[in-house]
Amino acid sequence: MLRTSYLFSSVLTPHDVKRDGRVMNFASDNWTGAAPEILDAVMRASEGTAPSYGSDDLTKRVEARFCEIFECECTVYLVATGGAANGLSLSVMTPPYGMVLCHEQSHVQMDECAGPEFFTGGAKLLPIAGPGGKLTPVTITKALAGFPERPPHGAPANVLSLTQGTECGTLYSVDALTALCDAAHDAGLSVHMDGARFANAVASTGATPAELSWKAGVDVLCFGGTKNGCLAAEAVIFFNKAMAKDFEFRRKRAGHLWSKMRFIAAQFDAYLTDGLWLKLADHANAMAKRLSDGLCAIEGVEVSYPTEINEVFAVFPDGVAEKLRDNGATFYPWITPGDPADGKMHRLIASFKTTHNDVDDFVDNVRRLL
Amino acid sequence: MLRTSYLFSSVLTPHDVKRDGRVMNFASDNWTGAAPEILDAVMRASEGTAPSYGSDDLTKRVEARFCEIFECECTVYLVATGGAANGLSLSVMTPPYGMVLCHEQSHVQMDECAGPEFFTGGAKLLPIAGPGGKLTPVTITKALAGFPERPPHGAPANVLSLTQGTECGTLYSVDALTALCDAAHDAGLSVHMDGARFANAVASTGATPAELSWKAGVDVLCFGGTKNGCLAAEAVIFFNKAMAKDFEFRRKRAGHLWSKMRFIAAQFDAYLTDGLWLKLADHANAMAKRLSDGLCAIEGVEVSYPTEINEVFAVFPDGVAEKLRDNGATFYPWITPGDPADGKMHRLIASFKTTHNDVDDFVDNVRRLL
Amino acid sequence: MLRTSYLFSSVLTPHDVKRDGRVMNFASDNWTGAAPEILDAVMRASEGTAPSYGSDDLTKRVEARFCEIFECECTVYLVATGGAANGLSLSVMTPPYGMVLCHEQSHVQMDECAGPEFFTGGAKLLPIAGPGGKLTPVTITKALAGFPERPPHGAPANVLSLTQGTECGTLYSVDALTALCDAAHDAGLSVHMDGARFANAVASTGATPAELSWKAGVDVLCFGGTKNGCLAAEAVIFFNKAMAKDFEFRRKRAGHLWSKMRFIAAQFDAYLTDGLWLKLADHANAMAKRLSDGLCAIEGVEVSYPTEINEVFAVFPDGVAEKLRDNGATFYPWITPGDPADGKMHRLIASFKTTHNDVDDFVDNVRRLL
Amino acid sequence: MLRTSYLFSSVLTPHDVKRDGRVMNFASDNWTGAAPEILDAVMRASEGTAPSYGSDDLTKRVEARFCEIFECECTVYLVATGGAANGLSLSVMTPPYGMVLCHEQSHVQMDECAGPEFFTGGAKLLPIAGPGGKLTPVTITKALAGFPERPPHGAPANVLSLTQGTECGTLYSVDALTALCDAAHDAGLSVHMDGARFANAVASTGATPAELSWKAGVDVLCFGGTKNGCLAAEAVIFFNKAMAKDFEFRRKRAGHLWSKMRFIAAQFDAYLTDGLWLKLADHANAMAKRLSDGLCAIEGVEVSYPTEINEVFAVFPDGVAEKLRDNGATFYPWITPGDPADGKMHRLIASFKTTHNDVDDFVDNVRRLL
Repeated sequence: MLRTSYLFSSVLTPHDVKRDGRVMNFASDNWTGAAPEILDAVMRASEGTAPSYGSDDLTKRVEARFCEIFECECTVYLVATGGAANGLSLSVMTPPYGMVLCHEQSHVQMDECAGPEFFTGGAKLLPIAGPGGKLTPVTITKALAGFPERPPHGAPANVLSLTQGTECGTLYSVDALTALCDAAHDAGLSVHMDGARFANAVASTGATPAELSWKAGVDVLCFGGTKNGCLAAEAVIFFNKAMAKDFEFRRKRAGHLWSKMRFIAAQFDAYLTDGLWLKLADHANAMAKRLSDGLCAIEGVEVSYPTEINEVFAVFPDGVAEKLRDNGATFYPWITPGDPADGKMHRLIASFKTTHNDVDDFVDNVRRLL
Repeated sequence: MLRTSYLFSSVLTPHDVKRDGRVMNFASDNWTGAAPEILDAVMRASEGTAPSYGSDDLTKRVEARFCEIFECECTVYLVATGGAANGLSLSVMTPPYGMVLCHEQSHVQMDECAGPEFFTGGAKLLPIAGPGGKLTPVTITKALAGFPERPPHGAPANVLSLTQGTECGTLYSVDALTALCDAAHDAGLSVHMDGARFANAVASTGATPAELSWKAGVDVLCFGGTKNGCLAAEAVIFFNKAMAKDFEFRRKRAGHLWSKMRFIAAQFDAYLTDGLWLKLADHANAMAKRLSDGLCAIEGVEVSYPTEINEVFAVFPDGVAEKLRDNGATFYPWITPGDPADGKMHRLIASFKTTHNDVDDFVDNVRRLL
Repeated sequence: MLRTSYLFSSVLTPHDVKRDGRVMNFASDNWTGAAPEILDAVMRASEGTAPSYGSDDLTKRVEARFCEIFECECTVYLVATGGAANGLSLSVMTPPYGMVLCHEQSHVQMDECAGPEFFTGGAKLLPIAGPGGKLTPVTITKALAGFPERPPHGAPANVLSLTQGTECGTLYSVDALTALCDAAHDAGLSVHMDGARFANAVASTGATPAELSWKAGVDVLCFGGTKNGCLAAEAVIFFNKAMAKDFEFRRKRAGHLWSKMRFIAAQFDAYLTDGLWLKLADHANAMAKRLSDGLCAIEGVEVSYPTEINEVFAVFPDGVAEKLRDNGATFYPWITPGDPADGKMHRLIASFKTTHNDVDDFVDNVRRLL
Repeated sequence: MLRTSYLFSSVLTPHDVKRDGRVMNFASDNWTGAAPEILDAVMRASEGTAPSYGSDDLTKRVEARFCEIFECECTVYLVATGGAANGLSLSVMTPPYGMVLCHEQSHVQMDECAGPEFFTGGAKLLPIAGPGGKLTPVTITKALAGFPERPPHGAPANVLSLTQGTECGTLYSVDALTALCDAAHDAGLSVHMDGARFANAVASTGATPAELSWKAGVDVLCFGGTKNGCLAAEAVIFFNKAMAKDFEFRRKRAGHLWSKMRFIAAQFDAYLTDGLWLKLADHANAMAKRLSDGLCAIEGVEVSYPTEINEVFAVFPDGVAEKLRDNGATFYPWITPGDPADGKMHRLIASFKTTHNDVDDFVDNVRRLL
C-alpha cells in the first residue's frame, strides 16, 4: 500500500512564474500580497506611540466598526491567523472532554494539524460526510443519533462548526444556515462558523453580514481578512457574548495577543472602510466565475462543484494538468475524504489580484493543451 | 430534532434482579465481581511489606509471566482501567499533533470521553466505518488516501488502533490481522490493539497469544483483565520495546502508578496461572454462543453480528425488550454510528459468572413474551 | 556540577528484610498491604452482580457515609490513587491558564511528575517556601503580592493547595487552617487540601473531620485511604458542590472511573465503619511518636520536625544510616527544596502494621551503631 | 488581605500624551510603531505573488541571513510574538512531564499566562530567585539538589531558560553565560534563551551574536524583533538542529504558521540589513543610559539595577510618580517576586524612537517635582 503524499514545495514550481507576460497563478488566495489601502493603513498606524496589547484607540475603533457592520453588540478579538481564530474560539465553546461536529473536509479537520484538539485541550472532532463540503440538519441528526449521550462515557457534543464559504467553494443559503443552526441549538450545540472566506460569501449572496451569521443562529464567527487582501488579520466575533468570558486569557497564553495590536487593527480599519472587504471579495468571486464558465465550456473538462465564491475545482483529462504547469500555470491538486473525483481534482483559486487576462490565458491554455 | 440520550441508570433497573430465582443479567461483563482465585491472590499479596510503585517481586514475576505467555521479550506496565491502558499507550505511540485511525464504533472513539485526545495531548482520532466493527486494509488505504500527508498541514497519521475482539463481538482472524498490520506498517503507522476482550479472542480462535498480537504485527497490546474476572487489572504490553521509553513517566503523572502495585500484580498472577484467564473467557464465550443459538432459533428475533466472543447483539420485535426487562432481564440498548438496526439493537453480554440457567431462562422468556 | 540523583530501587534493598526476626521497615506507609477488615469487604463486594461505573448501592452508601462523617451535604467521587485525586480535583478548581499556590515541598509540586499540570491542561504551580512544610497567611500574601494580577499577562491565581498532615509530618491546627483559608478566600482563591494523611491528622488533633476541612474553609478535600490500610482508595470530597460540576467527565476521560467501582467503595465501606480509619491512623501515629521519642533521646541524632503524625525525619551521624541498612532497616533519604539538613535527612514512616518491636529494634540499633 | 492588582488600562493614561510638545513615554518598547526601513520592506514584499507558508524566497533568504549573522548552520523558524517563540521552542525541548528551570521574574514565568505550560502540554516551570533578574550556576545547582531525580516521581529537569537581556535590564557576560550553560549541560539540561531584547544585549556588550549564544552553549535562541522596531517578528533559532525536528508541526497546530509568511520575513530582511537591528538597539540603550544617569544624579531617586540595556528601574520619593504622570509622563509600576523595593519600583523603557528631549524632559520633571 502506498500512501498519497505530497509536499507543496515538491508539487509546485514555488515561485511566481511569468512566461510571455502571463501570470496564471491560481495556487491560493494566500499567495497574494496585501491590498494597497491596507498597506497604507499599516504605515499610518506606525506613527507615534500607542498602548500595547489592544488597549489602543485603533483597536477599539475596529471593535466598534464590527458592531456596526454586524448590526449588534458583539465582542471582538483580533488575531493574525485563521488557525488561531478557529482553535481559540472552539476552546471557549467546548470543555476539553467535549465534541465538535464538523464536515470531514473542513479546514479544522483537515488543515490545522490537530490544532482544534490542541487549543481545546483535547476535545474530539467528529467528521461528517456530505456532498459539496456541506452539512445538513439530516446529516447532523444522524451523526448525533449514532453518538448518543451517555455521560460520562461518550464525549458530549457541544459545538457544530460550519464553514462559509465552504472548502469546496460552495455556499450555505440563509435558509440552509438557519436550518442547520436550529438543528444544532435544538440538540444543545452552539454554532461556530469558520469564515475564512466569509467576505466572499457576503459578496456572493448579497445577504447582510448579520443575516449570514447571528440572525441565522451563529454564536461565534471567525471573520477572515488574510485571504482577501490583509497581511495577517482575523477577527473572532462573539455574538453570544457570554462565551467570550475567558478568551483574552487563552489568546494570551497561546501567544496570539500582539503587543503592537494596532498593526492588526489597522488592517481591519482599512478593510472595513468604504466596503473594501466586499469589493475585494467581489472581484475574486467574479474572476472565479469567469474561470469556471470558461472551463465548463471546454469539452473534457469537468468542474466539480458549483462555483459560488472564489474557488474552482476542476478535473482535467490525463496529462493536461502537468502540461498547464509546464506552461507556467500554478495550482494544487485537491484530495479530500469522500473525494468524488478519485484524486483527479485540482483547485484553482482567484484572488483580489487575479486579472481577466490571468483567467483568459489559463482557459486558452487548457483549450490549447487538451 | 430530538437527540437520542440515555443514562445507564435511567434505562436499567440498576440492581441485581432476581425473580423466582432467575438471574438474567446480561448488562455487561463489568457487572460481575471477581473470580475467587483472583480474590485469593489479592488476599495473599497483602501479607508482609513490599516495595511500592511496582518494584516488588510480584510485579516482576507477572512481567516475566507475560513474556512467557507471549513467547517474546516484551515490556509490560500494569494499570487499573482499560481507558488508562488505551490512552497511555497511544500517548507514547503518537506525538500530540498526530493522528490515530480507528473504527468509528471503537471504544477509544465512542466510550472514553475523549480520553485518547487527553492522554496524547490533543492527537486526532480518525473514525473509519466498516461492517461488524471491523476495519480492512481497503478501508484504511481509502481513509489515508483522503487524508494525504501535507506536512505540516494535515495531522500526520501515526497509529492504527484495532480492537480484538471487536465492540460488535466479532473477531479478526490471524490472516485478517496480519493483512491489517502490514497495511499499517507499509503506510508508516504502528499498530495499537485494544484487547479489553483479548482473552475471549484467544479462547475463541485457538490461536496463541503471540499469533494474535506481535506475530501478526501488533506493536502495543492493551491486555484486559477487568472484564474477565479481575477487579481492576489491565496490562500494556510493548512488543516494540523502544516505544515504551517514557511510559513510566506518563503513567505516573496521570495518576495511574499504584503505590501498592502488587495489588494489580496479584490479580494477574492468579489470572495467568493454570490458564485461568482462558478458562474464564471460554466459559463466557460458550454462554454467549448458547444465547445466540437460542435466539437465532426464535422467529422474529434477529442476531445482528456473528457471535464470536461473549457478546450477542439482538433485535427483538417491538415491545419485547421492555417486557423482558419487566420480567427481570437486564441488558442495554446499543446505538452506534453506522447502526445497521436503526437504533433497535440490544447488547447481551455473558461473563465468567453466567450460567446455563441464566441463558435458558432468558431464551425461554423471549419465546414466551414474543 | 553533579546532580543528586537516586532511584528508589538503588537506594534500598527492595525486599522485606527480616534478620533475626526483626522487621525494621520504615520506608513508606505504602509498603504495607491492606487491613484485614478492608480485604474482607472487598471479598464480600465481589458477590452477585452490580451496576458498573459507580451506579451500585455500595458506592451510594459510601457517598452517604462521607456526608455523615463530615456532617454536611457534600459531593463525593472515588478514585484509586492520590495523584488522580489531586490532579482531577485541581482540574475543576482552576482553568488551564490559572495558577495554584502550594508549598515548595508539597506532593503536588514534588512527587506527581507534573501531574497537576497535566490534569489541569497546563495550569501553573507556584511553589512557596516555609519551614516544616507549612504555609502561612503571610507567605501567601507575599507570594501573591509578587505575582500581581495583570490580566491577561500573569496566570491568575485560583487555588491554594494545602497538605494536611504535611510532607514534613507536621500539622496545621484548626486555627492555622482557618487563617489560611480566610487569606485564600479573601484573595479570591479556593482551597484544595491534599489529605493523603488526613486520617492521621484527625487522629492526632482530635478535631472533627468537619473542623479540619469545610468548617475551616476547605473547598475540596482529597481524602486518602491507600496509605492507611486500603489497597487503592481515595475520595475527592467537594464541600463546594458547584465545583464538582464536570468532575465525572474528567474522571472518565482520565481513565479513573472504575467499571467495577464497588471494589473501591467496599474499601471505604470498611474503612469508615466503626472508626477503623482512625484506629489505624492512631496506631501509626503512636508508633511514629515512640520512634521519635526514642531517637530524640539519643545524643547525636537529630529529629528535624515535630512528630505530629506518622512520619519522623531524622539526621544521623555520618555512616550510621548505611550501617542501619546493613543491619536490615529500610528507610529513604529525604531531600527537598529548602532542605534544612543539607541532604542528610532520612524519612522514617510508621504504618498501621508497625509494631512496638519494630520501633524498639530500630532505636536499639541506632544506639548500638552510633 | 488585599491582593495587589492592576490593569494596565487603569494605571496609565492609555494614550500618547503630549503636553507643551513633550513626549515622556517610557511605558514599553512595544508602545512604539515600527522603524521606517521595516515598513518599507513590508510594502515591497506585497508585490507579486509568492508561495505561502514560508516556502517563499524571502523567507529562505532571511533564514540564510541568520546563519551568516550567527556564523553557523542553524535552523530558523519565524513567528509573530515572543510568547509563541518561547512556548513553541520549549515544547520541543522538554517532554510534557518535564521541568524547565527559570528565573522567578522571567517573562516565561510571569508574563505569558502559563503559556509555556500550555505549549509543552503541561511541563513544570521551576522558578528560581536571584538578584538583578539573574541566575548563577550556584542557584541552579541548589535548585536541582532540592529537586532530585527520582523517576518517575519528580518531573525530570530538562531545560534551563535564561533571558538575555534580563527582565531587570541587566546582562549576562559571555563568561557568566558560559558558566551557566556548562552547569546546565553537565546536569543534562539543554539551554533556552529568551532573547526578546537580544539585540540590546549584543549592542551593549559588543560581543558577537555567536559569542552570546551558541558559543556560550545556548541550544535554542528566541531572537526578538518586535520590541526593537519590527511590527511583529520573532525568530526561533535552533543551534542544536536535532531539536527542531517537529517544530514545524507544532507551529502549525498552534496557529503560528503564517500563510503570508513573507510579511514576517520582510521585517527581518530589513532588520538584519546594514546592522539596522543593532543601530536601533544601540539608540534605545543610549537613551536608557542617559535617563539612568540623569536619575542617579538626583538625590532621593534610586535606580534599582545597573542600566545595561534599554530599561531603567527607579524608586521615586512618595507621590512623585503620580505627579510625573499628571504632567504627562507614561510608565508602569513594577512588582515582581523577590521585589527589592517593596512595591515602589517603576520601570522606564527607552525605545528606538525615544529622543534626547524625551529623556531630558523627564529628568527635568523629576527634579522639579521632587
